[in-house]
Amino acid sequence: MIETEFRRPVVTVDIVMLTPCRGELCVALLPRPNEPFADQPALIGGYIHTDEDLSAESAVRRILKAKAGIGDIFFEQLQTFASATRDPRDWSVSIAYFALLPEGWLEDPEGPLLLRPATSPGQLPFDHNEIIAIALERLRNKGAYSTIPARLLPEVFTMTELLAIYQTVMGERLDQSAFRRKVRELDLLEEIEGEKRRTESARRPTTLYRLKRPMSVFDRRL
Amino acid sequence: MIETEFRRPVVTVDIVMLTPCRGELCVALLPRPNEPFADQPALIGGYIHTDEDLSAESAVRRILKAKAGIGDIFFEQLQTFASATRDPRDWSVSIAYFALLPEGWLEDPEGPLLLRPATSPGQLPFDHNEIIAIALERLRNKGAYSTIPARLLPEVFTMTELLAIYQTVMGERLDQSAFRRKVRELDLLEEIEGEKRRTESARRPTTLYRLKRPMSVFDRRL
Repeated sequence: MIETEFRRPVVTVDIVMLTPCRGELCVALLPRPNEPFADQPALIGGYIHTDEDLSAESAVRRILKAKAGIGDIFFEQLQTFASATRDPRDWSVSIAYFALLPEGWLEDPEGPLLLRPATSPGQLPFDHNEIIAIALERLRNKGAYSTIPARLLPEVFTMTELLAIYQTVMGERLDQSAFRRKVRELDLLEEIEGEKRRTESARRPTTLYRLKRPMSVFDRRL
Repeated sequence: MIETEFRRPVVTVDIVMLTPCRGELCVALLPRPNEPFADQPALIGGYIHTDEDLSAESAVRRILKAKAGIGDIFFEQLQTFASATRDPRDWSVSIAYFALLPEGWLEDPEGPLLLRPATSPGQLPFDHNEIIAIALERLRNKGAYSTIPARLLPEVFTMTELLAIYQTVMGERLDQSAFRRKVRELDLLEEIEGEKRRTESARRPTTLYRLKRPMSVFDRRL
């Protein structure tokens, strides 16, 4: 049986960039330069360029750089969305990725990015609302038992900041002493010796921490 | 900026079907009908047919039916493999899925499928060895805290069979009383009242169980 080849689908990548902003988790959007849905905010994404991209991941890096001026960051594959109906142009495949960035990294008032609350980003083109919802679900599922939410913090942080970001990700208040005990048990953090931070609210200088074992080499970039 | 469209990649789906066989986890392979790699065993897969498939999932269902005579089964998306080099023909995207089936479901000596140990399936075409390795990793990561390995059992099973399949998936011996305690704590099973199984080895008839809360509607099909 010889299988004849069919008209090929369109293949794009889309990136769900999440970052804390104004006390909640926000998603980065970019107004679309072209039709369909021209000028409407949407996930950062674009076609795979078969003449220059070596892989879907290199397409993600090229697009982040070209469309949002973003350099080397950690991202991982989320899920692929592939159907005859998700894009009005043609049968379409979007390989979706997600990236977690510390607060302030994406907040450039001169830049092209818009930050919208990830749980209520407004009505977006294509299936971008569904893609964001699945990214949040993945983050919450993984967050409960991993160091992943710490990627939303700068390299050095206080225990209070760590608790706050877990609460932001999980969308619920966590018991502070149970949280500290869990973090100690899992042996995730190392104390930064000889360095403390003085804040106005705390009477004593606050201990600073960083992640002990990055979950992968990419983690080091944060 | 108008983005010109580039030559589109080839888009396929591949399915990692795992099933217990001969006391270990096996993967189902099919000899390839065409070049490249004609006659070599490989994962079951094929092109997305943009003229008839509504989604990648419908392509999976069509291909399982057409190439292996397999009807409605539970499968889920694993990961997408997309690069300029994974397929000698062209820039290629494979949306990979995995499926878990009870022992015996795929063992038809007249059928086209080959069952090979999933941890040592031999040298396979494309990146199929990598895809299988990632499926096993996913199953082990999920298996430790879910009912997913139970999908490798028939609907009704004994506690001994459940322990055995977790051991097969995790690739390690588990403490029997700790396992029973964990299963009880998680409240995963319901006893099938009025039905027991008599085996030669056990002095008393053995209690039979089934999963209490299927993890999704698809679960019920197993």
